[in-house]
Amino acid sequence: MNKIGLKKVAAEIRKHKKFLLSVHTSPEGDAIGSELALAGLLKRLGKIPIIVNEDPLPDEYKFLPRTETIKIYNPNLRKLDYDCLIVLDCSDLNRTGKVSCLKRDNIPVINIDHHISNSRFGDVNLVDTKASSASELIYELYRQMKVPLDRNCALLIYVGIMTDTGSFRYSNTTPLTHSTAAELMHFGLDVRMIYRNIYESIPFVDVQLLNKILSRVRCVASGRVAWLEVPAKMLEHRKISFDLSDHILSFMRTIKGVQVVALFRENLGTRNEIRFNLRSNGSVDVNKIACAFGGGGHKAASGCTIKGRLQDVRRKVIERIIGALD
Amino acid sequence: MNKIGLKKVAAEIRKHKKFLLSVHTSPEGDAIGSELALAGLLKRLGKIPIIVNEDPLPDEYKFLPRTETIKIYNPNLRKLDYDCLIVLDCSDLNRTGKVSCLKRDNIPVINIDHHISNSRFGDVNLVDTKASSASELIYELYRQMKVPLDRNCALLIYVGIMTDTGSFRYSNTTPLTHSTAAELMHFGLDVRMIYRNIYESIPFVDVQLLNKILSRVRCVASGRVAWLEVPAKMLEHRKISFDLSDHILSFMRTIKGVQVVALFRENLGTRNEIRFNLRSNGSVDVNKIACAFGGGGHKAASGCTIKGRLQDVRRKVIERIIGALD
Repeated sequence: MNKIGLKKVAAEIRKHKKFLLSVHTSPEGDAIGSELALAGLLKRLGKIPIIVNEDPLPDEYKFLPRTETIKIYNPNLRKLDYDCLIVLDCSDLNRTGKVSCLKRDNIPVINIDHHISNSRFGDVNLVDTKASSASELIYELYRQMKVPLDRNCALLIYVGIMTDTGSFRYSNTTPLTHSTAAELMHFGLDVRMIYRNIYESIPFVDVQLLNKILSRVRCVASGRVAWLEVPAKMLEHRKISFDLSDHILSFMRTIKGVQVVALFRENLGTRNEIRFNLRSNGSVDVNKIACAFGGGGHKAASGCTIKGRLQDVRRKVIERIIGALD
Repeated sequence: MNKIGLKKVAAEIRKHKKFLLSVHTSPEGDAIGSELALAGLLKRLGKIPIIVNEDPLPDEYKFLPRTETIKIYNPNLRKLDYDCLIVLDCSDLNRTGKVSCLKRDNIPVINIDHHISNSRFGDVNLVDTKASSASELIYELYRQMKVPLDRNCALLIYVGIMTDTGSFRYSNTTPLTHSTAAELMHFGLDVRMIYRNIYESIPFVDVQLLNKILSRVRCVASGRVAWLEVPAKMLEHRKISFDLSDHILSFMRTIKGVQVVALFRENLGTRNEIRFNLRSNGSVDVNKIACAFGGGGHKAASGCTIKGRLQDVRRKVIERIIGALD
């Protein structure tokens, strides 16, 4: 545990009154859980939190408390008055997208993150690469600042931890992760309902689409690399109401002998823009591969958005993955 | 926690020397984990455990320690000499299949289980329907008998708990489940490797078959019931090396608005024999439905094997499920 970082963040928080909080674009459970739980802590301390994200919340997280307090970036917010910027679950300030425009030179930045690729961009940094999630760090911050948790914040932190550990099965799960989950469950959390809301709320037509997409999975390098391409036309005129990438990646990971899985999605909005996500069984550092293309993440999970044609990007990335196999 | 049951089982174990241990047919993680971990406890007490199951271990559990000590039932075992029979994870003695033939009238039976449908068939019963799994009960038995755990037994108990709670997401997950998992992880368990061995070791050809099967899912009752039929011919000449049912059921559960999912599989060996498995989101007691056909389980997960043609069985069971919707 990064005790020094915790103390420094606690001290910095005590100095200020009005806080701007933000997370990365395309926020998921840990980003949302950690920023809302931190906003709860700030309110308990009599402070004013303002949450601004570039992207709206995915539907599956709308059951969470206080999500209506999250503002979506718009240029008018440039006039926003605040004393301290807190960035969560971001390896770099640019991961917040357009929200990074709201940063001012004379305002201190607190950086709370658990990614190995974190650039220590804050004036105060609480970076703990051994923590399962940013949410686990917020739990420690509650303890550090001796602020009692309430049921809503316990739920938010639980969701952050559960989603970022793939329901306690990824290698970032530690004994502390489980004992924290035990403490959080004492607030009467209904884990079945939580899981159902996040992972089991896909409309039947989308389940059928998912099934169609999954039939496109291919293996190369004697089955050591699995990849899947999703062309924009497959998702056109479809409002996808769930984390499609997460479901596809989980499915591909079930293949025996696969060391790296790679998902390539053609961006719907911007032409010739490809988002790729990589997952590794631990034998290949996929953070390095994503970094080579300008992205980042963890050793076992990384991603990147780059310009190019779907097939070209796929060929280049797969080539580099194969080169990284032992 | 069933403290009285724990004490009684501990006292009964201390009385005897040679134990026959068994679990239900088609054993999964909790059955295997709990019987092997109990055998470890008995050995630490200087006793002799003999494990006999009707069915062999599924491939995905072969990475577990001491699995080679599990004997498969054969008629010669009728001469087996033992002083006490311990049945784990079975609602009824008949769930052990042919192993129930090895029971003798003058030999005491210890029944360790967590199913709501348990018939209290033992001379001594440790039944705790609030426990996540039989393995969680074995963990409590180690504590009760003050036998220190070792890494192998921690791994076995962890696997039982993890698989029976669907990786800590089903409603049988309690704060105690998580604090037990935290204790077990202190033995240096590699949760990523464990999960990979059990759920992510499906040969690519089988992943393709799974995808084909999943395209057969259908919804009825305004999307409140999802069902899927697997005719024997789909699996003919295929050695399925993973828990096909578990993967299919998990996939079906992702559909929004579904209250009950039902999987019907035509038995490969015996003609006109159908195995069906039901899962509920909690609004329908699927234990009752399975019981009506001679099966059993929990409120949220049950199963049954019956004679009949695939389509006939499916129609009858679906009709009863629809009747049970509110």
